Amino acid sequence: MTDRRRFANVSSRAKGPHRVVVVGAGFGGLAAIQGLRRSKASVTVIDRQNFHLFQPLLYQVATAALNPSDIAAPIRRVVRGWKNTEVILADVTGVDMDRRVVQLADGEVPYDSLVLAAGATHSYFGHPEWEEHAPGLKSIEDALEIRRRMLLAFEIAEREPDPEVQREWLTFVVVGGGPTGVELAGTLRDVARMTLAKDFTHIDPSTAKVILIEGSPHVLPPYASELQESAKRQLQALGVEVRSGLHVTHIDAQGVCINDERIAARTVLWAAGVAASPLGKTLGVAVDRAGRVPIQPDLTIPGRPEVYVIGDLAHLEQDGKPVPGVAPAAAQMGSHAAQNILRAMAGKPLLPFHYKDKGSMATIGRGAAVAQVGRFKVSGFIAWMMWMFVHVFFLVGFRNRLLVVLQWAWSYVTYDRGARLITGRADGPLVQGLTEDRLPSTTGAEPIRG
Amino acid sequence: MTDRRRFANVSSRAKGPHRVVVVGAGFGGLAAIQGLRRSKASVTVIDRQNFHLFQPLLYQVATAALNPSDIAAPIRRVVRGWKNTEVILADVTGVDMDRRVVQLADGEVPYDSLVLAAGATHSYFGHPEWEEHAPGLKSIEDALEIRRRMLLAFEIAEREPDPEVQREWLTFVVVGGGPTGVELAGTLRDVARMTLAKDFTHIDPSTAKVILIEGSPHVLPPYASELQESAKRQLQALGVEVRSGLHVTHIDAQGVCINDERIAARTVLWAAGVAASPLGKTLGVAVDRAGRVPIQPDLTIPGRPEVYVIGDLAHLEQDGKPVPGVAPAAAQMGSHAAQNILRAMAGKPLLPFHYKDKGSMATIGRGAAVAQVGRFKVSGFIAWMMWMFVHVFFLVGFRNRLLVVLQWAWSYVTYDRGARLITGRADGPLVQGLTEDRLPSTTGAEPIRG
Repeated sequence: MTDRRRFANVSSRAKGPHRVVVVGAGFGGLAAIQGLRRSKASVTVIDRQNFHLFQPLLYQVATAALNPSDIAAPIRRVVRGWKNTEVILADVTGVDMDRRVVQLADGEVPYDSLVLAAGATHSYFGHPEWEEHAPGLKSIEDALEIRRRMLLAFEIAEREPDPEVQREWLTFVVVGGGPTGVELAGTLRDVARMTLAKDFTHIDPSTAKVILIEGSPHVLPPYASELQESAKRQLQALGVEVRSGLHVTHIDAQGVCINDERIAARTVLWAAGVAASPLGKTLGVAVDRAGRVPIQPDLTIPGRPEVYVIGDLAHLEQDGKPVPGVAPAAAQMGSHAAQNILRAMAGKPLLPFHYKDKGSMATIGRGAAVAQVGRFKVSGFIAWMMWMFVHVFFLVGFRNRLLVVLQWAWSYVTYDRGARLITGRADGPLVQGLTEDRLPSTTGAEPIRG
Repeated sequence: MTDRRRFANVSSRAKGPHRVVVVGAGFGGLAAIQGLRRSKASVTVIDRQNFHLFQPLLYQVATAALNPSDIAAPIRRVVRGWKNTEVILADVTGVDMDRRVVQLADGEVPYDSLVLAAGATHSYFGHPEWEEHAPGLKSIEDALEIRRRMLLAFEIAEREPDPEVQREWLTFVVVGGGPTGVELAGTLRDVARMTLAKDFTHIDPSTAKVILIEGSPHVLPPYASELQESAKRQLQALGVEVRSGLHVTHIDAQGVCINDERIAARTVLWAAGVAASPLGKTLGVAVDRAGRVPIQPDLTIPGRPEVYVIGDLAHLEQDGKPVPGVAPAAAQMGSHAAQNILRAMAGKPLLPFHYKDKGSMATIGRGAAVAQVGRFKVSGFIAWMMWMFVHVFFLVGFRNRLLVVLQWAWSYVTYDRGARLITGRADGPLVQGLTEDRLPSTTGAEPIRG
């Protein structure tokens, strides 16, 4: 089977025109193929998932407000009607830059120009054993796992006779005070004090404790200090305990350690470390500590003018600062890579990339956020409205946008969350396994309703 | 941990009033607790899932039209504000009818009256090994697995160079011509010829072959013969190959056998057999061949006037025919059990149950359905509109209803399906594993975008 899969289809089709291969259909990859859609290039986009994920709203899936498909658009639907674009669902295992082929788990795809936009994953700072106790938030599956743990924690607390253990199930630790950690911590308190508050007999969900741990002195490290202060105050107003300047030294199923101090908590979420896709290490060039590939101002690898690296996988310094690993930067790089490919096809020299910082915003909870656009800084409800507008506006696809707005409006008016489902473990004992010191992962065996 | 979990909470709370325990929050269980909500009884509902599932629309999740949370309502939200009702998320392992306790995997719950509404699961007619090759459709997890296999089959066909193997990936077999099988087969053709038709480069999804195999002489066995004929014609008009009067004798990852004939198909779905929840067998009473518990006209077990069995778990003959295993029958039995419990509490004799057949309807595809209400029979678009109206009307919860209507309207106008996501396998090689003769089940390891 596998040895016959030689991409006869792909290579035979792509003989005439300039062949562009884009790896990854995130914000960077999508911008790149969009920039090439009306060109004479033959474009192939490869992703291991069949959808583009609107990652900035992933925490809304994790906290049961949105459905996976609200923030995901099938790649084939996005590129429908783009005559020069082909989609391949596959795992990229490496790149042979000398032979100019992208290697897949089961074949290879030749290119004339290559755009690597494979993104980033979690990093547990050399502690891979922490992952099973503290899931991160990068994929739909991650979000559903966090949702499952969050909702189950309240269910288990409801049935727990020992008050001390019950307390541990009602304690949530979020490690990492960047935008994702702040969003998760604030929204967890929203869920506890609003959505679930009246739904239990033996516990009061609104007493759930949420502790946010940040290693640097302030939450939201890249923001202006007045916004950091405001974010901290808004988090505290929601009931989040903010502990900054502290590093987690140990994580297990019962809690976390900060040096000698132990915090007993049955649910720990990881929002601390990011590492570039392992694809970077397969290129045979030196990568930085986070696994990112150093690139030139024109976004190519030195000595490889046909290989572009963009988004979270790229390391580029500009005005003495690295271009940040955020969606707008990835999208701008994708558009620029497309432009440079078109210039190369026309025999023109490549242009250097300039990141335009259009501002940044982080949401904290219901009606709580911070935003800065240049010198303009704003906090609280207005920042939250801005955040909402911008995110809804950029969501890919009209249908998603409409449904997301309706669901937000509904959950804002009623404090309700539509996606409060515990799914993913259809077999075996439901709660029993969870009281044994670890959360088993999902399996696919036969469910029996009982 | 486990040995301490003795339901101190539950039993201590339920000393005074009459304690009713309801096992299962499907249509039967939900109707029972609704019938008791204003009573003096103390009601405990136990389910292994935290949501009520609107099973009649499960195939819409399996075929990527609806999201899981569109057809599921959290039980705690349904009973919010019902002062006498408590929800327990747990696995019921058995019942000790002498001691009057429901046994859980990790404790027990005492009752004065018991309603068993644990429902049904798949039956593979003594061939449990078929399950991994032919998933059934009973739970959210089942539906997402079927969605994943259906969408992946087209992706794999797109990349398959061997035309014969490609053909096998574009062939779908549905085993079982009851309402679920008919819905799945018709909708699969809708997806192939409408939703996906223009989205691939190397295959034409509209050529996908869907074969429906039914053991009895006609599809939709319990329907009037003119509707069976109409259903067959409507299926054929959608392009489904209907083969009735044939029994599947073998299923593996490459197809199915019907006696000596082999049908090569990489995706096989199971809609044939139903068996009652294994809970019935733990009661110590004789069960029928499908594992259902024979009950008296008042819905109780002979000699156990405090134990009611309802819905798919019960076997009750009426006017010489068994009460059918459909949602309205389960709901009517649930209401009747509640009424009888209230009568028993008041010292009144129990009343016999009478099933009122309000008609039945089955959908086939876009604009195609059959319905019969008494002598009134209707087919095609009007039956489909009736089916749609009834199902939307009964969906639990306003929010679900609104969103479902919008999504249906959207997908009707655009032929689009919003939930076209392949999820559930975040780790390891994506397509590679799938070309090796079997589909691995879901796991929870770390995803790396590539």
